[in-house]
Formats: sequence, C-alpha cells, structure tokens
Amino acid sequence: MRARVTIMLKPGVLDPQGEAVRHALASLGFQGVEAVRQGKVIEIDLAEEDRAAAQAAVEAMCQRLLANTVIETWRIEFPD
Amino acid sequence: MRARVTIMLKPGVLDPQGEAVRHALASLGFQGVEAVRQGKVIEIDLAEEDRAAAQAAVEAMCQRLLANTVIETWRIEFPD
Repeated sequence: MRARVTIMLKPGVLDPQGEAVRHALASLGFQGVEAVRQGKVIEIDLAEEDRAAAQAAVEAMCQRLLANTVIETWRIEFPD
Repeated sequence: MRARVTIMLKPGVLDPQGEAVRHALASLGFQGVEAVRQGKVIEIDLAEEDRAAAQAAVEAMCQRLLANTVIETWRIEFPD
C-alpha cells in the first residue's frame, strides 16, 4: 500500500525557501501572496497491506530518518 | 485562502532523492519498502477569496515558477 508523508517546518521556524518563493512570485507580478511555506512530500510503496502496521512503520521512518523532529512536523496519509 | 501545491516528478523520470531515501530506509532495517518518490509541497496563503480565481492564479504560478513543466506534475488543493 502507498503512504504519503508530508513534512513541513513547525510554525515559528524560519522558512527561507518559502520566503524566497514568496519574493519570486512578487517579482513575477503575482499579487496578494501573503505567505509561502515549503515542505516535502515522500510517497512510500510498502509491501505491508495492514493499515495500522503500515502507519506504525511509517511513523518510525519519520522519527528515525525522514523528518527532523526538532523543527519539523509530519502528516501520514494513505491516499488509496 | 490557503492553497496547497504538491509537485512530483513525472512517472518515468529518475528520482535519485527518492532512491537515496529507499536505500537509507533499507540500511536502517525497514523491510518491505518497494519504492520511494520524493516531491515538494508548497503552501500559499492568498488574499484572493474566490476559489476559481485562486485556482487560476496558482496554476499560473506553477507554470511560471513553482514547477518544471518538462519533468514535474502538480496537484493543487484547497484544504480549508
């Protein structure tokens, strides 16, 4: 089954990448862009078919590798 | 209103970042990870309140700045 992990910086953590995008959009003439935050999304195809087991495995992957637990939050979804 | 843009490499485009994550997960002992694709997510807070106008604006932002139209696809959502 496929898991989708969305990882964003925690609120309050400076996001220079998002800020750069906001500036670039303004430079291109896009009006009314108030804030931009950039994060990453990781799609993982798992052999595991049990939803609860997959959720636990992906949670462990986030804690150990995918996210920086100090400055990032994550959300795990199963789109199918 | 807030728009969320998810940008992924098109199917068939080599994803070395995702491949590196897959290897790292295997090295850490995570079993049954068949494939990993990594993309980015951009959350944009817009002054625009009309959904259709916001959709059109964000579509233009993707075409002009946010995505590489040759190798990437994107999905625009309005989570609220």
